[in-house]
Amino acid sequence: MANTERVGFIGLGIMGGPMASNILKAGFPLSVWNRSREKAMPLLEAGATLGASPQDVAAQSDIIITMVTASEDVRNGVLGAQGVIHGAAHGSVVVDMSTISPRVTREIGAALAAQGIHMLDAPVSGGDVGARNATLSIMVGGDADIVERVRPVFEAMGKKITHIGPHGAGQTCKLVNQILVVGNNMAMAEALVFAQRAGVDVAKVVEAVGGGAAGSWQLNNLGPRILRRDFAPGFTIRNQQKDLRLALEAADDVGLPLLNTATIHNLFRVLEADGLADEGTQALIKALEKLTGVTVEA
Amino acid sequence: MANTERVGFIGLGIMGGPMASNILKAGFPLSVWNRSREKAMPLLEAGATLGASPQDVAAQSDIIITMVTASEDVRNGVLGAQGVIHGAAHGSVVVDMSTISPRVTREIGAALAAQGIHMLDAPVSGGDVGARNATLSIMVGGDADIVERVRPVFEAMGKKITHIGPHGAGQTCKLVNQILVVGNNMAMAEALVFAQRAGVDVAKVVEAVGGGAAGSWQLNNLGPRILRRDFAPGFTIRNQQKDLRLALEAADDVGLPLLNTATIHNLFRVLEADGLADEGTQALIKALEKLTGVTVEA
Repeated sequence: MANTERVGFIGLGIMGGPMASNILKAGFPLSVWNRSREKAMPLLEAGATLGASPQDVAAQSDIIITMVTASEDVRNGVLGAQGVIHGAAHGSVVVDMSTISPRVTREIGAALAAQGIHMLDAPVSGGDVGARNATLSIMVGGDADIVERVRPVFEAMGKKITHIGPHGAGQTCKLVNQILVVGNNMAMAEALVFAQRAGVDVAKVVEAVGGGAAGSWQLNNLGPRILRRDFAPGFTIRNQQKDLRLALEAADDVGLPLLNTATIHNLFRVLEADGLADEGTQALIKALEKLTGVTVEA
Repeated sequence: MANTERVGFIGLGIMGGPMASNILKAGFPLSVWNRSREKAMPLLEAGATLGASPQDVAAQSDIIITMVTASEDVRNGVLGAQGVIHGAAHGSVVVDMSTISPRVTREIGAALAAQGIHMLDAPVSGGDVGARNATLSIMVGGDADIVERVRPVFEAMGKKITHIGPHGAGQTCKLVNQILVVGNNMAMAEALVFAQRAGVDVAKVVEAVGGGAAGSWQLNNLGPRILRRDFAPGFTIRNQQKDLRLALEAADDVGLPLLNTATIHNLFRVLEADGLADEGTQALIKALEKLTGVTVEA
């Protein structure tokens, strides 16, 4: 079956690059734009078209995907000068797959709706590995018929595609995901420091408990890295902090305390102050090690 | 292969009863003792012998297992009047499978060693379901040759048997397990309250994130119960609090702060004060609900 929807892709970073590549491989006509043009080169060689601006990409596309960093990047790319809104046709769809504020995505969606342009929020989890292997989890907010229209494009990039609810619900789901991720990370860090200080073989302990009620993705995937003192990023502290700011801001919008998440955000700040923002999130344990004088090792 | 080691089992509660039953089914000669005799009846009908006291059970056994509640219960059953130590033969093995203080188990082990009696600490995880189905995880501390001698008995009760290290290491591993369990539980509680307050479909969110980096046993097993408002105990708050006291005490023994675990222990206290000690640990969310006025529902 030919894929006839024309796709535009804005933001070809560590995530967006391989995601766009998978869309092209699935047979969609693809035009792309990135602030630095070099990152587009492999896609152009594979058959994509280079747009002159987000506006230009939008003018060539039925579905326009944005995959950038922060709320303001999405706002500028979509609503700014030469932004998507100036090129997108009535009835086209903007799909923001960045992780941004649920409030900001709803504001952008309202501006687009006033021009007859649909919007979905569709943040992802699964990291750069998931982006390359097309195994991302995609959490989608928006109207059901638009979600179904875009589903073939999602399926080119991800494995688990869940329609959570109306526009903004995808971003909220991603923030729930991040609250869980850092909470499980914190539990792991505290448990491993305790194990080390209590004098047991930490690797044996991780192996003994990881498959039961104490198990988590964080423990089973990041625990072994900590034991090797491997703090290379799967996901950086810098990006984790961006997402925690969004969660704390969204909680503040509704007057909700997030005791655990706020504490963890502050512990990550200790590490940022130590110049470790570009290490992986498993380095959270270094904040507890600093507090306690314990070093966890296999 | 006939199982020729004679096993004694002391403590036939919700865990000990089915564990003793599985030992009998595996073909070991079994004698038992329990404070209230009625709980021994099904085992006696299945072929076990009733001892008159822990001392009497020990006199009939090569391997004596204790499965009771608290550190002092083990101390009394092993070292007290009519305790195991007064009946156990030189070269026999006491295996305490209760969750107790690592320090106390080492003290009891030293008293037994002075009489030429071996000791292992072998706490379990997997709950009453694991006890019935012989799928417990067993975390063992003690001398390797003694662990190997007892292994066939462990294999009658559990699926994953890990020798962590010297005597006491099994209990320490169990405390690490509990620090992880409550930390992941707390992450779940905070995330679900946020999801509810932010207005998304909490069941869809749990389904969307449970298989990825946010996933944990707690979320995948207890999350759905919370959404059904099912607070029946797999493991009670009362017992969780006992284990957290042990963890905080063991941390205090070595001068280690446990920021997260101490906070969670105090949140559980809120629920104990509300008369909820016999609800399941998933009721932790009720403490956050009380703080925030949010009620999480499917």
